Amino acid sequence: MSNVSFIGIGGMARAIATRAVAGGNSVELVGRDAAKATALAAELGGGATVGTFGAIPAGDIVVLAVPYASAVAVVTQYGDALAGKVIIDISNTFNADATGVVTPDGMSGAQEIAKAAPASAHVVKAFNTVFGHVLAQDRPLDVLFAGDDSQAKADVSTFIESLGLRPLDIGGLEMARWLEGAGPLLMGLARHGAGTFDIALSIDVLG
Amino acid sequence: MSNVSFIGIGGMARAIATRAVAGGNSVELVGRDAAKATALAAELGGGATVGTFGAIPAGDIVVLAVPYASAVAVVTQYGDALAGKVIIDISNTFNADATGVVTPDGMSGAQEIAKAAPASAHVVKAFNTVFGHVLAQDRPLDVLFAGDDSQAKADVSTFIESLGLRPLDIGGLEMARWLEGAGPLLMGLARHGAGTFDIALSIDVLG
Repeated sequence: MSNVSFIGIGGMARAIATRAVAGGNSVELVGRDAAKATALAAELGGGATVGTFGAIPAGDIVVLAVPYASAVAVVTQYGDALAGKVIIDISNTFNADATGVVTPDGMSGAQEIAKAAPASAHVVKAFNTVFGHVLAQDRPLDVLFAGDDSQAKADVSTFIESLGLRPLDIGGLEMARWLEGAGPLLMGLARHGAGTFDIALSIDVLG
Repeated sequence: MSNVSFIGIGGMARAIATRAVAGGNSVELVGRDAAKATALAAELGGGATVGTFGAIPAGDIVVLAVPYASAVAVVTQYGDALAGKVIIDISNTFNADATGVVTPDGMSGAQEIAKAAPASAHVVKAFNTVFGHVLAQDRPLDVLFAGDDSQAKADVSTFIESLGLRPLDIGGLEMARWLEGAGPLLMGLARHGAGTFDIALSIDVLG
């Protein structure tokens, strides 16, 4: 069981939090719109609580569930309130037509977020390779993640498993750019070869 | 049935060519080491022939099956001998530790190869998201591809299907960098979360 706070209460937060409640985790919801957070908490049930935007989150794990365009600003605003937290960056960084990314060359959004976070926080990139509406379906899925701190990654892995999903570590946070690169790849597949957004990237372990 | 020439006769060429022969395609093998190409042709059977390195390939489709480090040089050396061909770039561009890529920021190896190829040739990126030893197993797999010319992509798609594999278009050649980004991602998975190189990236189409 993990203590998890969500900063951001949009579709991805709803999808992950719904699974988190079902998985027996303690869930806190934090949004700029407190009324909306309260409504979502009531809808989720499972003892989900509502926190104050900008205050120290109740959870040891903080799911940063805001668009990448505002993610660095939100982390900067939180500042030391995120000290010691495991921050899960779920953002996608692709541009308007989803052919490129908005991050500086050779960098990832996750690394930009890590630079803005307190030194004692640990950023783990995860969930960006899963479409929110697919996560909202009750299916097993693969969740790829990357991060530098082994304990933080173990915590995130446990949390992912509690959601009925398979955690798959791809390495250090420098690898987050390749997870973020899977964003445009999946968008391209949805628009071209698959012809539907009802797709999921999965890793077959053979043998 | 496609007419396919392989430039390069290493493990990936062997794996694809083996499936190509089984799929009833006409196969030509071209390597700097003609004796090795002749031996592979004999091993493959199916009427596989041997071509001369640097000469006009027999195939309408040319699988450029050399390491990325030499791919641009080989295409440059071929020059107009590749005029009008559909060139399948199968290369991976990741660096020695497979955490980054060796291509210039924002570019892909496939685009570098296209710049070096005759204007009448069409480059399609494909197969780099499949490990050669996995391709050598007799399994259905997903083969993601990208390219700018719709006829060339249709030809490559037909060829991929003839191999018992599922072709999945992700868009224009500018998307090749995201296919190439799947290279380090898969290497990271093999070394970390999966713990084995016997893995395959697949796309589940849900619904």
